[in-house]
Amino acid sequence: MIKTDILIIGAGPTGLFAVFEAGLLKLKCHLIDALPQPGGQCSEIYPKKPIYDIPGFPEVLAGDLVTNLMEQIKPFEPGFTLGERAQTIDKQGDGSFIVTTNKGTKHHAPVVVIAGGLGSFEPRKPPIANIAKFEDKGVAYIIREPEVYRDKKVVIAGGGDSALDWAIYLADVASEVSLVHRRNDFRGALDSVEKVEELSKIGKINLITNAEVTDLQGEDELKNVVITHKASASEKEIKETDYFIPLFGLSPKLGPIADWGLEIEKNAIKVDNAYDYQTNIPGVYAIGDVNTYPGKLKLILCGFHEAAIMCQSAYQRIFPDKKYVMKYTTVSGVSGFDGSKKEAKKEVVKSIN
Amino acid sequence: MIKTDILIIGAGPTGLFAVFEAGLLKLKCHLIDALPQPGGQCSEIYPKKPIYDIPGFPEVLAGDLVTNLMEQIKPFEPGFTLGERAQTIDKQGDGSFIVTTNKGTKHHAPVVVIAGGLGSFEPRKPPIANIAKFEDKGVAYIIREPEVYRDKKVVIAGGGDSALDWAIYLADVASEVSLVHRRNDFRGALDSVEKVEELSKIGKINLITNAEVTDLQGEDELKNVVITHKASASEKEIKETDYFIPLFGLSPKLGPIADWGLEIEKNAIKVDNAYDYQTNIPGVYAIGDVNTYPGKLKLILCGFHEAAIMCQSAYQRIFPDKKYVMKYTTVSGVSGFDGSKKEAKKEVVKSIN
Ligand SMILES: Cc1cc2nc3c(=O)[nH]c(=O)nc-3n(C[C@H](O)[C@H](O)[C@H](O)COP(=O)(O)OP(=O)(O)OC[C@H]3O[C@@H](n4cnc5c(N)ncnc54)[C@H](O)[C@@H]3O)c2cc1C
Ligand SMILES: Cc1cc2nc3c(=O)[nH]c(=O)nc-3n(C[C@H](O)[C@H](O)[C@H](O)COP(=O)(O)OP(=O)(O)OC[C@H]3O[C@@H](n4cnc5c(N)ncnc54)[C@H](O)[C@@H]3O)c2cc1C
Repeated sequence: MIKTDILIIGAGPTGLFAVFEAGLLKLKCHLIDALPQPGGQCSEIYPKKPIYDIPGFPEVLAGDLVTNLMEQIKPFEPGFTLGERAQTIDKQGDGSFIVTTNKGTKHHAPVVVIAGGLGSFEPRKPPIANIAKFEDKGVAYIIREPEVYRDKKVVIAGGGDSALDWAIYLADVASEVSLVHRRNDFRGALDSVEKVEELSKIGKINLITNAEVTDLQGEDELKNVVITHKASASEKEIKETDYFIPLFGLSPKLGPIADWGLEIEKNAIKVDNAYDYQTNIPGVYAIGDVNTYPGKLKLILCGFHEAAIMCQSAYQRIFPDKKYVMKYTTVSGVSGFDGSKKEAKKEVVKSIN
Repeated sequence: MIKTDILIIGAGPTGLFAVFEAGLLKLKCHLIDALPQPGGQCSEIYPKKPIYDIPGFPEVLAGDLVTNLMEQIKPFEPGFTLGERAQTIDKQGDGSFIVTTNKGTKHHAPVVVIAGGLGSFEPRKPPIANIAKFEDKGVAYIIREPEVYRDKKVVIAGGGDSALDWAIYLADVASEVSLVHRRNDFRGALDSVEKVEELSKIGKINLITNAEVTDLQGEDELKNVVITHKASASEKEIKETDYFIPLFGLSPKLGPIADWGLEIEKNAIKVDNAYDYQTNIPGVYAIGDVNTYPGKLKLILCGFHEAAIMCQSAYQRIFPDKKYVMKYTTVSGVSGFDGSKKEAKKEVVKSIN
C-alpha cells in the first residue's frame, strides 16, 4: 500500500504543478498516470510544438514545459505509479481514501486530487477480430521499454509521428522492422518522413503501404501477421513475427472515474470554483482540464491556479487545527524534502565608517 | 483622449499578462501606472530577487519575469501612460468609462480593469516641514531620467538599495553626489555597499552618515540643503544644491480608487470569483493582488488566471452578439497587431512510394 498526503490522479502539467504547491505546505504527493511518462497531453500529443500562452514564456515547447515542471517539483520528491489507470476509490471510516489501479496497486491518502485532463489516455485499437487474444502476448499499443524489442521481428502499423518515430528507432534495435500503413501519405515531422524513406531504401525498414493488418495468427502467442493490400485485396503473411505494434494514437477517456459518484457535466467533473475546486465528495478535488465550472477555460495556466488554491483547502482538511500563513517563495525560499534549500541571497546590513 | 478596448490600471505582472490574453481576443489594451516603469512590485521592490513559484520556472528573477512578459505582449502593442496615477472614473451614457489621471490625461474605454496590486506606489517622504514647496523645483522622489542630473550638484538621502544604486550611478553623471544616511549601517546588496564605500574613499561620493536632512532653503527653487548630525546636533549646509532626492522607498496606497464606489474589503476590491472577477460596477473588473474573494491568494500565478478569465467576460461585454470560440495558441498561433505571426511548424503530409 502506497501512503501519501495528497494522491493525484493524472501527471499532466496540472498534477505536476500541484506537487510544488503542496510541497510548499510540506505535503507529500504521489501521482498515478495511465501513460508511461509524466506530462499528460503535452508529452503525449504535442511535445515538440510551441505553446505561446504560458505566462512568462513568449514561446515554450510543450515537452520543455514538462521538463521544467519536473525540475521545479524535484525537491518535493513526488512518487509515481505510471502505466496504470486509477480504477476504484473506496472511502475509509476515517474519511481517507484508497484508490486502486487496474493492475491492483493500492494508494492510501486523506486527500485525492483528480487532475485527469480529458481522461486516461487509452490506445486506439485496430478492428482486428482476435486482437484482444494477443494483448501482452505479442501485441502492444504503447512502447514502454524499447529494449524489449532487441533482436526481435517487429511489425508496426500507423502513418503518424509515433509510428514513424518508433520505426526509425527500432530499425537499429530490432532484427527486422516492417511498417504497415493503409495509405502512402504519412503525416508527421518532415525529418521523420524523410528518414523513413531513406531507411526503407537501404532496406532497414520494410515499408508496406496501401495495406492493412487484417488478421493475427498463433496459438498462445502471436506468430504470423496477415496483411491485405488494398488495391489487389491480395494477402501476405509476415511469419514468425514476435511483436505487432499498432500505433494509431491514444484517445482520452474519463473512464472509471465517471462511476465514482462524482457530479459530471459535459464529460467533466463539477467543482466549487468559488472556493477550492472541491467536488461533491468532500476530500476529493478536481483541477485542470478535467473539471468544469461556469466560465471554465481548458488552459494550462488555469490548472496552475486551481492547483494552488486547492492545496490551501487540502491543507486545512489534513490539519484542521493548524493555521497556514502563506509566505512568498522569494522571502522564505524553497525547502525540499530531499534536504535541498533554495533561497534568495540575503541583503546585507553593513556599516561604512 | 486615449481610446482603447480595455483600459488597465496597474502595469504589474497581472496587468501585463492581461494584455496578452486580450490580444488573443483581438482586443487592444492601454495601461496606466504611477511608476515610471512597468512590472509593479516585481520591478519596484525586488527586481534582482528570485521567485520560485512561477509555474515552469524553477527559478526566475522578478525583473526577468517582467522582461519576459513585456516580450510576450509586444505583438499586441499595448499603450502606456506611466508616472501618472488614475484618479477619477466617470461612467458615460453608453456604459463606457473615462478615467483621468492626476496629471489630467484622459482615457476612454468600454471596459476598465483594475490591476492595481497593493495600490499605487507613492514615495515615502521625509518629515521636512517645507519639502512640498520644492517638489519638482529641486526635490524628486523618483529618478525617471538620470540625464537630468548630468553635471548637477545632487544630494541623495537613504540607506537602502535604491539610495546606494543611484548614488553609484550618479557618481559618474552628476558634478557632485552626497549620500546622507541617518545611520552608518546600509542595507542592500553586498556589491552595492562595497562600491559606495570605495567611491567614498576616492572622493567620488561625499558620504555623510549618522545625519539627516532637516531643512531645505531657497526662493522659488531649491538652493541649500541643511544637514544635522545626530550625535553633535551640529548643522551643516550643502550650498548651491541643484537636486535633493530622498529615496526612502515607495509604499503602495489604494488611494483614489477607494472612492470609486467599489465594494472594498480588507483594503482590496471584492469581485465575483465564481464567474469573471467583475466588481460591483458592471464593466469594471479587478484582478491580481488588488482583488479579494474567499480563499484569495496574493500570488502572481493567480493574477495570470484571473486575467485570462476576465478577458473572456470583457469580450462578451464589448461584443455581446459575437460568440468567441477559444483556440489553443499552439494550434492557431499568435497574430500580433504589429503584423507579426508566430505559429507552430505545420506537420507535413508526404507520400513515400
Ligand atoms: C494539440 C494541442 C495544443 C494545445 N495547446 C495549448 C496551448 O497553446 N495553451 C494551453 O494552455 N493549452 C493547450 N492545450 C491544452 C493543454 O494541453 C491542456 O489544457 C493541459 O494538458 C491540461 O493539463 P491537465 O494536467 O489538466 O491534463 P492532461 O494534460 O490531459 O493530463 C491528464 C493525465 O491524467 C491521466 N489520467 C486521466 N485519468 C486517469 C486515470 N483514471 N488513471 C490514470 N491516469 C489518468 C491521463 O493519462 C493524462 O496523462 C493544447 C492541447 C492540445 C491537444
Ligand atoms: C519581496 C516580495 C516577494 C514576493 N515574492 C513572491 C513570490 O515568490 N511569488 C509570488 O507569486 N508573489 C510574490 N510576491 C507578490 C507579487 O509580487 C505580487 O503578487 C504581484 O506583484 C502582484 O501583481 P499585480 O500586477 O497584481 O500588482 P502589483 O505588482 O502590485 O502592480 C500593481 C501596479 O499598479 C499600480 N497602481 C495601483 N493603483 C494605481 C493607480 N490608481 N494609478 C496608477 N497606477 C496604479 C502600482 O503602481 C503598481 O505598479 C512578492 C512580493 C514582494 C514584495
